[in-house]
Amino acid sequence: MLWQVHSEKTLYAAPSADVRIADVELPDGRHRDHHLIRTTPAAGAVVTDEQDRVLLIWRHRFITDSWGWEIPLGEVVEGEMPQAAAAREVEQKTGWRPGLLRPLLAVQPDNRLTDTLHYVYRAESATRLGPPADPWGRIDWLPMSGIRRLIDNGDIICGTTLSSLLYVALDCLGVEGRKTTFDPTRPLLLRDIPGLGL
Amino acid sequence: MLWQVHSEKTLYAAPSADVRIADVELPDGRHRDHHLIRTTPAAGAVVTDEQDRVLLIWRHRFITDSWGWEIPLGEVVEGEMPQAAAAREVEQKTGWRPGLLRPLLAVQPDNRLTDTLHYVYRAESATRLGPPADPWGRIDWLPMSGIRRLIDNGDIICGTTLSSLLYVALDCLGVEGRKTTFDPTRPLLLRDIPGLGL
Repeated sequence: MLWQVHSEKTLYAAPSADVRIADVELPDGRHRDHHLIRTTPAAGAVVTDEQDRVLLIWRHRFITDSWGWEIPLGEVVEGEMPQAAAAREVEQKTGWRPGLLRPLLAVQPDNRLTDTLHYVYRAESATRLGPPADPWGRIDWLPMSGIRRLIDNGDIICGTTLSSLLYVALDCLGVEGRKTTFDPTRPLLLRDIPGLGL
Repeated sequence: MLWQVHSEKTLYAAPSADVRIADVELPDGRHRDHHLIRTTPAAGAVVTDEQDRVLLIWRHRFITDSWGWEIPLGEVVEGEMPQAAAAREVEQKTGWRPGLLRPLLAVQPDNRLTDTLHYVYRAESATRLGPPADPWGRIDWLPMSGIRRLIDNGDIICGTTLSSLLYVALDCLGVEGRKTTFDPTRPLLLRDIPGLGL
């Protein structure tokens, strides 16, 4: 069921995105010119406090012209480890320094179009440093118990924020519906994910 | 906190993706050349049966060179309603015709780069038609109770599949940890989402 890639060439190279066209052969023998974008990965974190509130940013996205709550997440810069990038992004965008970051989830946000990978980490504490360096929105700590309602109201629409918060919400509920603490010995998404920064 | 967009122009126009550059002014007055891609929306569905198994496709993505379980999802074609696109995509990619499709979730898979919107629907039944027209992978019905394990094994990495399955998994668990049926009267993600096809 593999699509055979006969060639791939750059059509337009932007600083952090390479627009390409691939000649792919489908399993039934048909050929297709498939556009794709090769771009840099991003890293971010779900940061919670001891009251099970989560650190979110209410921000506007000019590309979609829409508002929504998002976890802090941003580009992994050249030579940086994803874990360090996640810590830096949380700090720059929220003004809070996260406690110990453990890998939570790896997400391909849109594998129909790009090879971007989002590395999401989890911290259960944070220290206030001051106002954020990148003041892109309103910073707030919101209860995890209210996440589902925010989603249903259309206030969380960012894909990786949805995946990450729903994953943690499911974790919180546990199989018996009781609250459980996060289990650091649980196998995490390490297979096939290079550079997760353990 | 709005980024003011002074101009936006096309750098490269592909059939279903328009690569653009925008001159944006950040809240602190700095200007930034921001690349973005305007592209078509996609629609798909979480289809379950009476045994709480979900219809998934085990497929390879050549762009990321990775395998994973995914819900059926594909491009909304010109003039098509998202709901009709979701039904067509399920049928083409799995060979199953979904029962009544209700809106589940709207996802911006990567609002840092593109304006793509994924419309995800939910069906609780399906009828087998035959082999899929697009045989891109192995079709299977997998128990919802095993979704979390698949994620932790790295077998589900597609962003919109993660969001959609975790949302349904949380729904199944319910607040008391008991299984609840899906509530069709619950407010759904309709606000600000045009053309959801109700």
